[in-house]
Amino acid sequence: MSQLVQRAGAVVFATAVLGWAIGAAAQSGDPLPSWNEGAARQAILQFVETVTNEGGADYVAPADRIATFDNDGTLWVSHPLYVELVFALDRVATLAPQHPEWRDQEPFKTVLAADHKDMADFTKGDWAQIIAATHGGMSTEAFLEIARAWLATAKHPRFDRLYTELAYQPMREVMAYLRASGFRTYIVTGGGQAFVRAFSERIYGVPVEQVVGSSMVTEYEYRHGEPVLMREPEEFFTVNHDGKAIGINLFIGKRPYAAFGNSDGDREMLEWTGAGDGVRLKMLVLHDDAERAYAYGPADGLPDTKVGAFSQALVDEAKQKGWVVISMKNDWKTIFAKPPQ
Amino acid sequence: MSQLVQRAGAVVFATAVLGWAIGAAAQSGDPLPSWNEGAARQAILQFVETVTNEGGADYVAPADRIATFDNDGTLWVSHPLYVELVFALDRVATLAPQHPEWRDQEPFKTVLAADHKDMADFTKGDWAQIIAATHGGMSTEAFLEIARAWLATAKHPRFDRLYTELAYQPMREVMAYLRASGFRTYIVTGGGQAFVRAFSERIYGVPVEQVVGSSMVTEYEYRHGEPVLMREPEEFFTVNHDGKAIGINLFIGKRPYAAFGNSDGDREMLEWTGAGDGVRLKMLVLHDDAERAYAYGPADGLPDTKVGAFSQALVDEAKQKGWVVISMKNDWKTIFAKPPQ
Repeated sequence: MSQLVQRAGAVVFATAVLGWAIGAAAQSGDPLPSWNEGAARQAILQFVETVTNEGGADYVAPADRIATFDNDGTLWVSHPLYVELVFALDRVATLAPQHPEWRDQEPFKTVLAADHKDMADFTKGDWAQIIAATHGGMSTEAFLEIARAWLATAKHPRFDRLYTELAYQPMREVMAYLRASGFRTYIVTGGGQAFVRAFSERIYGVPVEQVVGSSMVTEYEYRHGEPVLMREPEEFFTVNHDGKAIGINLFIGKRPYAAFGNSDGDREMLEWTGAGDGVRLKMLVLHDDAERAYAYGPADGLPDTKVGAFSQALVDEAKQKGWVVISMKNDWKTIFAKPPQ
Repeated sequence: MSQLVQRAGAVVFATAVLGWAIGAAAQSGDPLPSWNEGAARQAILQFVETVTNEGGADYVAPADRIATFDNDGTLWVSHPLYVELVFALDRVATLAPQHPEWRDQEPFKTVLAADHKDMADFTKGDWAQIIAATHGGMSTEAFLEIARAWLATAKHPRFDRLYTELAYQPMREVMAYLRASGFRTYIVTGGGQAFVRAFSERIYGVPVEQVVGSSMVTEYEYRHGEPVLMREPEEFFTVNHDGKAIGINLFIGKRPYAAFGNSDGDREMLEWTGAGDGVRLKMLVLHDDAERAYAYGPADGLPDTKVGAFSQALVDEAKQKGWVVISMKNDWKTIFAKPPQ
């Protein structure tokens, strides 16, 4: 054998070893380790394979790979009450000394009495008053600091962990997998855009410019000659129900190829996503795991907790339109990431 | 000389040749070939060098590299009238057969008479009526098609070229240079977000999700069972003056490190940018080139055309705050890209 042939043989051998190593790495690198085998996991894997297959009929160019995620109940825990409302209630208590009038004024009086039974009956108008009083009247930068300070210490009553530790691990894996597949992952939340921006990068890897959420009227003012943006006690734009599709058009301007929700408020986002051509992934997280998390519907006889509703009408539409329902109980191996040691 | 030394010598020689070649390539690869030597060009080069210098005190992480650009008069021609208003006037004529009442109704009567002298006196209210009638009452997708069809044929009266060929070549180079340096380039326009999205990717390389602009109230409706987003004849959010800083916070959530404008409507965007810490680039395009383009102020004795104002107060603030004024006449070698052959 000539030296040349010897060398050529070595190259072939090295290439074969490298190919095996890459294959093994890809096999061991399951992008969704917290998902059980099943239709939901399969739908995600199949979707990504289809839209990234460059020769395929359903290939999607990277510039158009947009995925949108609801936040409360889809990406992190939202029970027994939306995290941001817990923040608002805590803030009412913090601000109370500056508002002696709240002692006799609803809904603040009930909040300050910590009367959870009566709070359950709060109307949308009551909550709007609480949001206005706690989310307005400061600069955008001051609000960010207030939200971050609260998130750094406030703990969930049942799990006794920081709220930011209660993101759903399987959904974080989906987000990371989609990003590794060329997608940009947006949060489209009925919650406050500014509140979610306070932690989106850290716990989901979503930069603030990819957070679409409800916002307050904001004014440009000068303090000591420097410009500030002041948050007024009035909502500007609500990103829920129809507002999710409208917000996607306003902030992104492209129709998502994948959308994830967990309640009736996400219906229009999934419809808008599904009305596009080609292959689109539409998924709903069903909270059917009272043991490890919470269970609520009212679909399928699950209790109606009034904190996010998964109605029978939503189930019916999902079936009719081929939306995939994720069972927290059956599809997820783990709910939350392990606590840092 | 041993073979080893010979080889080492060859390596040293090859490295020297390669180093020279890279240096020569860098020298010939001027990122701003349409800019004359001068303070404006130097400010851009110096800024990029400073914020991308990883060891330096003013280094900016790629995630925070945001640059914002006004559109009309900063990125493309805006005289004798804003391009989008020419579009709106053309559309009034197109829609007139369906609106016989316009024959006797202002401001439409004046538009249909093509009375340019009287149109010069249109109030903001007149223009709002024209925008409502021409930009509302169709789906978001239908509007995109209408805008694209118009842009494909409408020509500028003086230059006899498509409006999309009248982007300023020096500014396109700045955008490309910033993107090559890790920046994301956003358009922040008082014009219609949907109108600018119709061409932003093609002529500026700016994807639609990086266009912040004025928008119409939008409604989610169903047509033949499919969802559509309908543009209502009512403005939702105006991105001008204070609305530019507010819009940057709403859509991006990060303070720009570089901002480019050309009129009093960009003042707050430059102030907001400049109020951040570290090194920030604030630039204003002064239209002082009547020969190759247009000349207007009223600063520096330039004529007041009412289509974009560069006031003396803006000049004074620029001087006081170290904003760099770009002279189209002196700083730009060319104004528009050469027509395709």
